[in-house]
Amino acid sequence: MKSKAIKIGMIGLGTVGTGVYEILKEHSQLLAKRIGIPLEIAKVAVRSKNKKRVLKVPSSLLTNRVEEIYSDPEIQIVLELMGNVQESRRIALQAMKRGKHFVTANKALLALHSREIFQTAHDNQVDICFEAAVGGGIPILRALREGFVANRIQSLFGIVNGTCNYILTEMADHGADFSATLKQAQALGYAEANPKFDVGGIDAAHKLAILIAIAYGVSVDLKNLYVEGISDIDPLDIEFGRHFGYEIKLLAISKQSERGIQARVHPTMVPSASMLAAVRGVHNAIQIDGDSVGEGMLYGKGAGSRPTASAVVGDLVEVARNILAGVAYTVPPLGVVGPKVKEAKIEPMGLLRSAYYLRFYAIDRPGVLANIASILSRFGISISSIYQQVREEGREVPIVVLTHEAQEKSVLAAIQKINKLSGIKRKTKLIRIEAKLK
Amino acid sequence: MKSKAIKIGMIGLGTVGTGVYEILKEHSQLLAKRIGIPLEIAKVAVRSKNKKRVLKVPSSLLTNRVEEIYSDPEIQIVLELMGNVQESRRIALQAMKRGKHFVTANKALLALHSREIFQTAHDNQVDICFEAAVGGGIPILRALREGFVANRIQSLFGIVNGTCNYILTEMADHGADFSATLKQAQALGYAEANPKFDVGGIDAAHKLAILIAIAYGVSVDLKNLYVEGISDIDPLDIEFGRHFGYEIKLLAISKQSERGIQARVHPTMVPSASMLAAVRGVHNAIQIDGDSVGEGMLYGKGAGSRPTASAVVGDLVEVARNILAGVAYTVPPLGVVGPKVKEAKIEPMGLLRSAYYLRFYAIDRPGVLANIASILSRFGISISSIYQQVREEGREVPIVVLTHEAQEKSVLAAIQKINKLSGIKRKTKLIRIEAKLK
Repeated sequence: MKSKAIKIGMIGLGTVGTGVYEILKEHSQLLAKRIGIPLEIAKVAVRSKNKKRVLKVPSSLLTNRVEEIYSDPEIQIVLELMGNVQESRRIALQAMKRGKHFVTANKALLALHSREIFQTAHDNQVDICFEAAVGGGIPILRALREGFVANRIQSLFGIVNGTCNYILTEMADHGADFSATLKQAQALGYAEANPKFDVGGIDAAHKLAILIAIAYGVSVDLKNLYVEGISDIDPLDIEFGRHFGYEIKLLAISKQSERGIQARVHPTMVPSASMLAAVRGVHNAIQIDGDSVGEGMLYGKGAGSRPTASAVVGDLVEVARNILAGVAYTVPPLGVVGPKVKEAKIEPMGLLRSAYYLRFYAIDRPGVLANIASILSRFGISISSIYQQVREEGREVPIVVLTHEAQEKSVLAAIQKINKLSGIKRKTKLIRIEAKLK
Repeated sequence: MKSKAIKIGMIGLGTVGTGVYEILKEHSQLLAKRIGIPLEIAKVAVRSKNKKRVLKVPSSLLTNRVEEIYSDPEIQIVLELMGNVQESRRIALQAMKRGKHFVTANKALLALHSREIFQTAHDNQVDICFEAAVGGGIPILRALREGFVANRIQSLFGIVNGTCNYILTEMADHGADFSATLKQAQALGYAEANPKFDVGGIDAAHKLAILIAIAYGVSVDLKNLYVEGISDIDPLDIEFGRHFGYEIKLLAISKQSERGIQARVHPTMVPSASMLAAVRGVHNAIQIDGDSVGEGMLYGKGAGSRPTASAVVGDLVEVARNILAGVAYTVPPLGVVGPKVKEAKIEPMGLLRSAYYLRFYAIDRPGVLANIASILSRFGISISSIYQQVREEGREVPIVVLTHEAQEKSVLAAIQKINKLSGIKRKTKLIRIEAKLK
């Protein structure tokens, strides 16, 4: 065992980078006790060395040339916390080709370039770790590769975007509408100035792609994921949902069916008594159903400087323990041996079988409901409940229909027909239901 | 990489052993893909070779001499699933001294003999794994040693006994009393014929000792743990608790204070909106508060053949991956380097500061409540709420008092005084409250 420290070169000193720097400093003794040797930040690459920072970093550590990080023979671990996908990709490849272990929190990098990145890690037999890319401080990737390794994952449900969960929780608690709540979330720093990436479901889709890749040992083409955000959610739907015993959550879902792997991100009604319904605010949770273990869930803070940095430092410790033992790549990034993995066969969304919440806006006159019911029936969709709050003859009223399990493409076709009825004045709202979630 | 299989010698073929055998058989290909080499059960030691078993095991694999397992030079991993503490201890030491890696699900073994076991693993540089000993299929030990390694654990709350959680959930749902619910749990196989070990809190205490050892990198003397079971819980207390917004759970609790580490198992009132309150039936959950990650929780099935076997096989895979990489003991069992750890300094229970639920049974006549309040006040205990459901002059009625944070020994002394008042006819019920749990 070498007595000197393990040297880390860090790229990026934003929110997460600052958290990592602070944890390594505050917990240097604790970590040395847990690893057997200290971790040392040897160099930090930043865009501007002279930028004012709250964090005090000795200027001797700072550089604005990333090459200085991955070319430094003393540095054994390159930690990328910069965010930009193309630059990160280039750095990852350069670093690993030089035999550096690579740690990142960059979910877009992994979602878009995992094949190339994992191949390079394998070819150079270096560790590639990215626990912080999904679920912030929640050690879900590690759990999928190790703790749940004895399982075929039958389904996976994730609340993996804190911004969306915060907005939906606030809307549910206060009955406020989406845009007002988004503005409030932005004011509190829980949502970005440009919120599309979060509320549009894209961030959740990146994370889902990574989860699926590890759960099934496959590569995932982002294009094959179905993605729907939360901006169309109406307080009315939250209220109606509760009437039927459901809460609305933005879920990243994957299930194994005979037709392939489901891969979808969309607002979902989950039973109010389920564990996922209890996940409030900016928290994240990933629930799995494994054929050996049954249902399991990991819950925690999905974002923020310290929680994310906690996961990053966990990765650094893993790599450091491996360096001390003289090994690398003992647990492959996708949980299966060898970098050559199959492309995931994703079930086409039209073939999905699900229960549905449908909200029609109809002129309340005789025959409208009969027409709706008759179209649904013609498409093989059977109704489990109907709810109509207030009846006011001749005025527009919401009619809510819950269906039994039906095929997505039939439901969409039926809605298209229903939307053309003379009594229907607005586009029908569709929300998928996961009624069996515990 | 060797192409032949990694050979496992298994001791015990009860509930968990059967689950392990089945998983290794059903998932042999999947596991080989995930490890890079097959796992093979080479021998199984059982008490009686001729016992009728549902599980079909080739008789050539069976032996009733455990020495055949740990003396076999082909066997690299000894898996102990027998249960008996003294025999397990002997086998563990014998196996590790012969260079075998040792996997077990035996929580009592670890709670009672960890010092000796870990020292032997260290001296022989073999892996010692026991994920299944706490929380069944929940990968909590791994999470504490690896995923949350960047954290000082500030507090830890566990629902770690499924029998107790099942009974409390049933009592809450149906208002039934403890003994009737226990009988029902026994009939359903959720409780043992001799339930003391579970409902008395001893099983939870064993698990808490292991959790504390790993969370803080210490050794724990079971004698120092405060243990109180659930047999005194009355449906009335569950009802009153709900009135104040609390559910009652049997929690294993550890917190760091200036006076040491708290280590206690007892019925606890937790906020109804907290994640732990949502853990129902036989499920387990462990919630931690880490100084970096904030609060996190792992949830799942805490017992049963397959869930427990899922954790055991996870351990087998970890050891197998290490064997292939030519390493062992890379992550030390207590998460800190070296086998020499300090004995945990446990805070004496009398010094605990907590909020309390106190239920008095008093004759409803003028002055009784004033007497109670005056005694509490004399002991420095301040009241946050009082609840008295029905007033019937001259008859015995329950009076519920919730206190602000107070010192345990003052509360006990005050109760002793109150129990002697002429208007008090029964022993006062005390339940600790964790009001800040999220």
